[in-house]
Amino acid sequence: SSANGTKSPTTLPLNNSFLNLDQGDPTVFESFWRELNDECTVVIKGSDLLSYLSDTGNVCWFLLPELRDAVKRLHNVVGNAVTEKKHIVVGTGSTQLFQAALFALSSPDSPHPMNVVAAAPYYSEYKDEVEVVLSRLYKWSGDANVFDKDEAYIEVVTSPNNPDGTLRGPVVKSRAEGKLVYDFAYYWPQYTPITHKADHDIMLFTFSKCTGHAGSRIGWAIVKDIEVAEKMTRYIQMSSIGVSKESQTRVAKIMQVICDNYQNFGYAESKLFFQHSKRLMVKRWKKLNEAIKQSDVFTVAKSQRAYCHFTKELSETYPAFAWLKCKEGIEDCESYFRKLKIITRGGERFGADAKYARLSMLCKDEVFDEFLTRLSNIKWVSN
Amino acid sequence: SSANGTKSPTTLPLNNSFLNLDQGDPTVFESFWRELNDECTVVIKGSDLLSYLSDTGNVCWFLLPELRDAVKRLHNVVGNAVTEKKHIVVGTGSTQLFQAALFALSSPDSPHPMNVVAAAPYYSEYKDEVEVVLSRLYKWSGDANVFDKDEAYIEVVTSPNNPDGTLRGPVVKSRAEGKLVYDFAYYWPQYTPITHKADHDIMLFTFSKCTGHAGSRIGWAIVKDIEVAEKMTRYIQMSSIGVSKESQTRVAKIMQVICDNYQNFGYAESKLFFQHSKRLMVKRWKKLNEAIKQSDVFTVAKSQRAYCHFTKELSETYPAFAWLKCKEGIEDCESYFRKLKIITRGGERFGADAKYARLSMLCKDEVFDEFLTRLSNIKWVSN
Repeated sequence: SSANGTKSPTTLPLNNSFLNLDQGDPTVFESFWRELNDECTVVIKGSDLLSYLSDTGNVCWFLLPELRDAVKRLHNVVGNAVTEKKHIVVGTGSTQLFQAALFALSSPDSPHPMNVVAAAPYYSEYKDEVEVVLSRLYKWSGDANVFDKDEAYIEVVTSPNNPDGTLRGPVVKSRAEGKLVYDFAYYWPQYTPITHKADHDIMLFTFSKCTGHAGSRIGWAIVKDIEVAEKMTRYIQMSSIGVSKESQTRVAKIMQVICDNYQNFGYAESKLFFQHSKRLMVKRWKKLNEAIKQSDVFTVAKSQRAYCHFTKELSETYPAFAWLKCKEGIEDCESYFRKLKIITRGGERFGADAKYARLSMLCKDEVFDEFLTRLSNIKWVSN
Repeated sequence: SSANGTKSPTTLPLNNSFLNLDQGDPTVFESFWRELNDECTVVIKGSDLLSYLSDTGNVCWFLLPELRDAVKRLHNVVGNAVTEKKHIVVGTGSTQLFQAALFALSSPDSPHPMNVVAAAPYYSEYKDEVEVVLSRLYKWSGDANVFDKDEAYIEVVTSPNNPDGTLRGPVVKSRAEGKLVYDFAYYWPQYTPITHKADHDIMLFTFSKCTGHAGSRIGWAIVKDIEVAEKMTRYIQMSSIGVSKESQTRVAKIMQVICDNYQNFGYAESKLFFQHSKRLMVKRWKKLNEAIKQSDVFTVAKSQRAYCHFTKELSETYPAFAWLKCKEGIEDCESYFRKLKIITRGGERFGADAKYARLSMLCKDEVFDEFLTRLSNIKWVSN
């Protein structure tokens, strides 16, 4: 049963089936949104949202003005990014915007393809997204920690990092021309203290990890330079002629509800999304840390502590993924979990060792509880 | 004022402003959908559609089953494509699916990049979509009519064709291995007689031109081979991790309403979408043909006539664009129209002569009427 006492429709008993903790499908927040179902409801009529165009006076001509305003308002409420004097570009998830950024920052006239690097362990999909159609504009050049070519590069700075939740800055030491793309998918108060208002040239955000509405496929970039914003818009035009207006409308509505609830002081704390979702993450991490300690098979990276300007308190990080390392004697963490019928993503996919695996902390309650049960039975399995 | 007598909110008087007939923004159908606003309404609650996943048992794991079923039902009602024993892949517009098809049909192990060709005049965006990130998998090789390399190729067959509305088949004569992608964006009864149930390996459709819901960014591919469907799905995963579920839900709903209205015989003909929209197209083409004849400056390609298995009558084509050719003495059709403050897309963009230009026939009523007024004043302008 889920947090609010209603039962989710689970067709199979979980205790003998595979648990999928591979993807970071953020269904953990579902019960919160169910409580706010009515406030968040959007109604779309037959003749609404027909046109390709949204705002022809704006750089990103397919961005609905209501979403642009909601994005700025949300960042203002949370205090995690500067939006003043910047351009907002909407994308079909931040995945599309990542590729739009590579396109915008590289050039067909360059003598080499642009090197794209990220410090290991890095998000497992960057490599494939960079390489999927074998572009001559850019190429994947691996771990930023060891990049030392005298060629132009883009460093992707993921903070908090996927898979390990660490707070990060750029690491490349090359004297060549470098550009930075900040992937802030997880820079929200439930996962990390909000240490500062980020203010960089290109910052990517996704609604999927912010609220759990992954099915909407809405991401946005906050971009300083208008020419970069124009090129990113051009890429999205070539790639999909814009972004779903239904999703844009709905995401704008949900952002407005989040902000309204923060700005109406009389509201119950149970209606404050980031407080509620942080409590969920704190609870899960507490349980996981206990189970890991008991099992004596894994270690997990120490969480970081900092002052959070949003919650006005010292806070730990509560990453969206657990990045576990097997202790001596187990060489392949993913395979180890597979014996427990737990599907994880192995360390090598992240440019790290097979001793590591990444596990989603955002699954449904019943899946998480069953995961803990299996962890607590581990000694029995390994003997 | 629009077709149903209500006034659209036009902020500027049209008679001195630029008319944008460049894009094919399909707002002509808006008044029809306004009449069906209540039937087509979708309501999306706060906790709906959270997950990335839709149907993990299906090749296209992000396709909502309700959309898959609605797509099959719509093709069954219209009779324009075979869906039995085929796979449906949903995309963010058919633009994303076109690129997914190129990815699926080409290989990194091939000695040459795959040649992508289309018979001129071809859709102006194919070239840029193929070339945008300078892939080493495929390249744009221009007019299919003159392609004679002994190298593997993909021919895009657009029927009815954009820009000129002609009904087409493949034209390449090369003995090299060729693959076909059918772009059926306009293979709907308001634009063309439905001459047969199309049954090809890869067929692309878009909701934008079918009903005018371009803002939803929903396209679908009907694919015979499961491995091709898998590779297309993989491309969309890398490109945007799926497709907006809000749009998928809404498009499924509108398709269901269209089909319901056809299958309930008691319904008024004014509720039958394709009958209604065909009447709009017939009316516009009649007016345009008269204005062109009067102006004595342009010619327009002769429309084709065939038996339509959907309307059960002989029918002409009523293309979504007018493809106009200037008569002797005018070398640049786009510039000619610009003097009339009419924005068109010049022939060279389509691999054709500058004497041609493409004009959208899908604009709002007030824009179309003003366009006709300017055409009728042409002699005054050209003297």
